[in-house]
Amino acid sequence: MSGNLRVLIVGGVACGPKTASRLKRLLPRAEVTLIERGSVISYGACGLPYYVEGMFPQVEMLSETPAGIPRNVPFFEKVKGFKTLTRVEALRINRLPKTVTVKHVDTGVEEDLFYDKLVLATGGQAVKPPFAHEGLQNAWFMRHPHDAESMVREIEKQKLRKAVIVGAGYIGVEMAEALIRRGLEVSVVEARPQVLPQFLDEDMALLAARHLKQKGVHLILGENVVGLEGREGRVTQVQTENSLLPADLVLISVGVCPNDQLARDSGLDCSPRGGILINSNCQTSDSEIYAGGDCVLNHHADPMERSPLYAPMGSTSNKHGRVIANHIAGISTPYKGITGTGICRAFDITIGRTGFTEKQAMELDSQVETAIWAGPDLPHYVPQSKPLIIKVVASRRSRKLLGVQVVGMGDASKRLDISSTALFFGATVDEVADLDLGYAPPYAPPIDPVAAAMHLMVNKLDGLAAGISPRECMRRMSESAPPVLLDVRTPEEYAAMQLPFHVLHIPLGALRERMHELPRDRDILAFCKVSMRGYEAQRILNAAGFDRVFFMEGGLVGWPYDLHVP
Amino acid sequence: MSGNLRVLIVGGVACGPKTASRLKRLLPRAEVTLIERGSVISYGACGLPYYVEGMFPQVEMLSETPAGIPRNVPFFEKVKGFKTLTRVEALRINRLPKTVTVKHVDTGVEEDLFYDKLVLATGGQAVKPPFAHEGLQNAWFMRHPHDAESMVREIEKQKLRKAVIVGAGYIGVEMAEALIRRGLEVSVVEARPQVLPQFLDEDMALLAARHLKQKGVHLILGENVVGLEGREGRVTQVQTENSLLPADLVLISVGVCPNDQLARDSGLDCSPRGGILINSNCQTSDSEIYAGGDCVLNHHADPMERSPLYAPMGSTSNKHGRVIANHIAGISTPYKGITGTGICRAFDITIGRTGFTEKQAMELDSQVETAIWAGPDLPHYVPQSKPLIIKVVASRRSRKLLGVQVVGMGDASKRLDISSTALFFGATVDEVADLDLGYAPPYAPPIDPVAAAMHLMVNKLDGLAAGISPRECMRRMSESAPPVLLDVRTPEEYAAMQLPFHVLHIPLGALRERMHELPRDRDILAFCKVSMRGYEAQRILNAAGFDRVFFMEGGLVGWPYDLHVP
Repeated sequence: MSGNLRVLIVGGVACGPKTASRLKRLLPRAEVTLIERGSVISYGACGLPYYVEGMFPQVEMLSETPAGIPRNVPFFEKVKGFKTLTRVEALRINRLPKTVTVKHVDTGVEEDLFYDKLVLATGGQAVKPPFAHEGLQNAWFMRHPHDAESMVREIEKQKLRKAVIVGAGYIGVEMAEALIRRGLEVSVVEARPQVLPQFLDEDMALLAARHLKQKGVHLILGENVVGLEGREGRVTQVQTENSLLPADLVLISVGVCPNDQLARDSGLDCSPRGGILINSNCQTSDSEIYAGGDCVLNHHADPMERSPLYAPMGSTSNKHGRVIANHIAGISTPYKGITGTGICRAFDITIGRTGFTEKQAMELDSQVETAIWAGPDLPHYVPQSKPLIIKVVASRRSRKLLGVQVVGMGDASKRLDISSTALFFGATVDEVADLDLGYAPPYAPPIDPVAAAMHLMVNKLDGLAAGISPRECMRRMSESAPPVLLDVRTPEEYAAMQLPFHVLHIPLGALRERMHELPRDRDILAFCKVSMRGYEAQRILNAAGFDRVFFMEGGLVGWPYDLHVP
Repeated sequence: MSGNLRVLIVGGVACGPKTASRLKRLLPRAEVTLIERGSVISYGACGLPYYVEGMFPQVEMLSETPAGIPRNVPFFEKVKGFKTLTRVEALRINRLPKTVTVKHVDTGVEEDLFYDKLVLATGGQAVKPPFAHEGLQNAWFMRHPHDAESMVREIEKQKLRKAVIVGAGYIGVEMAEALIRRGLEVSVVEARPQVLPQFLDEDMALLAARHLKQKGVHLILGENVVGLEGREGRVTQVQTENSLLPADLVLISVGVCPNDQLARDSGLDCSPRGGILINSNCQTSDSEIYAGGDCVLNHHADPMERSPLYAPMGSTSNKHGRVIANHIAGISTPYKGITGTGICRAFDITIGRTGFTEKQAMELDSQVETAIWAGPDLPHYVPQSKPLIIKVVASRRSRKLLGVQVVGMGDASKRLDISSTALFFGATVDEVADLDLGYAPPYAPPIDPVAAAMHLMVNKLDGLAAGISPRECMRRMSESAPPVLLDVRTPEEYAAMQLPFHVLHIPLGALRERMHELPRDRDILAFCKVSMRGYEAQRILNAAGFDRVFFMEGGLVGWPYDLHVP
């Protein structure tokens, strides 16, 4: 590699600066130039909702190093050794002379910049629905520090009180929390019938939605926003299909799409649905042009799985930057791909997903099994113990783990990352159950929730556990001949909270003596607080010749519908 | 399999009840009998220090189900469907008639119990050093609920004030915290020159020891206890090689050894160093006799690694129980083995280890590389962000991850379990760096500490990063021609805290301009708060032709020795 290699990087948020910094460490003599259309570079966009919430005082902290040094043009020049041009927009790539025509935004002056290697890190942008016209003073997207800063300024200056968030994805949910914490009233309108529709199955989304409602978020699901109403450039009402919501703040968060126009215009392969196509070295269809970050499509780490997919993440952008810098410097470190991991805080709960949801998995394979487990994240005698609900998706054929969803107040983040790591290595559910995870009472019970959830799945795959999901239970309860519900909890537990149906209550310890009270000609659906005892009841009854026994996965802790408190 | 199979299980703490419970779910007609020498069954022994600390009010909670039901003889009879005989000791196995001669402890009556399958879950016991003679009223081991209960009772009744703990393993460290929280003065005497000697390398142990000292624990390392002194059955002083420690409470925690005598006496293969040998189905050398839990030796999940090893853990015992029950029921689920994971809380820090330490790895392979990384567990703008120090051990030859140690106030538990999962699947450090871990500001920075630590290792393996450990730095500073220390932090950071040596201070941003101040004929050792900038300084100087530049891994955060506060 020539020491005077000219590398031009378009885009200065995550992948661009990472590529440039790493490249200068690998090839100190390379002439690395980064151009950015905006004026702020290298900021942590994922921190924007937390700035709005008030977690930290200055939005500028998102573009500082941990030591508090601003990551600005002089920083990149002096510390990292590359040149940065802000407020410079790339207009077109001229692949034959290997130049990029750029425009200096402030002066309108155009010039051509030469490159030996070009890196496209043009990022993503908020999807703009038809009603989101320009010039509204109190409607925001949330992609850039300016967005967060102006929203906070306006909330304070104009004393904004009523927020309507359009879209219940990650950003919508995080911003709902942020604005509630700021004291606003918050409604969230989502076109799909559930929160986090790209992210969670319906049953897990119901659990998340219940928590959001408990925290005061007004959820309007399965309704489209048809327009914003107001006067003098200010929205005063949001019109949905069925209602008119008063609003003095509107956040539009209906998704992100890749900025692939520059690549597309210069003939690089892109997906018809958006996104630059890259190989595992992050090269585009022109091997001298790389791309990474939110403008590209990703491949799944498991080559058997459907690819490519759009999954914009700051963490992935950094990995792309490393792969690109390495490859330019002659080090081949092919990127194995993503497992589709996402995590989101919503007030007191954590919501996580890795791999495929049941819905996604079903589109790929009909032999999909699911299991929903609920239980405490720590031994029961530890006061800090909190509940978790884990949904496992696996292949019946190969017993491979396909996906995990986690919702709960307990340590969901750890269980998500364990699952993501196992997925990355193509683990079977049997293997995940055998992992040697750290065990001590402040951190986990002796059988970790991940292992316990996998045991349930294994027992289902082996035909031992006849668990059915809460959603399926709800469906069966509305049938003309619903199953007999068998609550096997203690009398104290039964007195405190119940399913809103007629149930037969026989504590598990009395079941062997009292099983004659149960019918043999009807389906029996056993449950308890988390349905460990529900499963035991099923096995006890099976052993006594009852062959129509099931249990409700997750028990009352995993039940996403209403409960009855006597 | 016969429905009337007779299964006899010896031992009622963890593996025994698990085996029996699962077996009755798989083979309801099997006649399962569990015998236990003591009177308490199925307790969570790992919770004992937390009971002493006062985390929960009754020690009985350790043998309750999460729903608060005591796991006693009637519980196992009524709920799980197997028979339990307490205060019954197994005297010998008669392998030809397939019986076990047992003695009823209270009556002295002996009888023979028949078995088709025998399960040995005889557990482990505290190692008893020569000075630990019977009959001392104020000296304890910590293995059984009785131990914890009587210690708490005596602390309260006798107003015990001065505790000496012999042994700084897991239990010693956990009990040091527990007793300090109870208001006692605590000294810990350890024969080896570091805390957690079986568990951590010296450099990581130094970090843990510093924290223990900050919390008021008096550590006496590298000294043997030679005797306990006192009168009328009460210890008043602990005599070590060099000092005499006043004590009104002594805890002896110098290790655990397997209860393998019953197996050994009946000719089953055991290790000369202790522990029953089993195959992956948990069968002993007699295929009709299984063994699991703290009485057996474990195999490493990676078949290439040294086996077997003694690693008693409640989590592993439960896995053994499942494997044994499955195999008896005709389901083959060979246990892949352990990765050697352990975790321990010590006041505000978490200490974890998975796989091999550097020391252990060096005994197996000379081509071992290590890397110590330090940094925050969350983005710097999140106020809850706390430091972590991660030590990675890898093979230079195969680039395989061999072990990870974690110490710090941040979320070490998650990083430990990610590492353990990766180890289980034989990951290379390159693969671990590419994991798709959950990223959102409340949970992780965009480059997770696990990935960042692996990047450091990868950069070392690739010859890019010339990092040396704090211990090696300390050694070099005592040489006749020590390296030039180069502190590249900001002036504000420099003013607040420094290494206790003469250093040259050039902030990283000024290094390119001021590098003429550095000698070219001496080793230069760069560092910063965590040595990310230290590494950058090395690369900048390398690029300028300085070829004797190193950086101190972990920086000031990972520095386990004294620091100078001006």
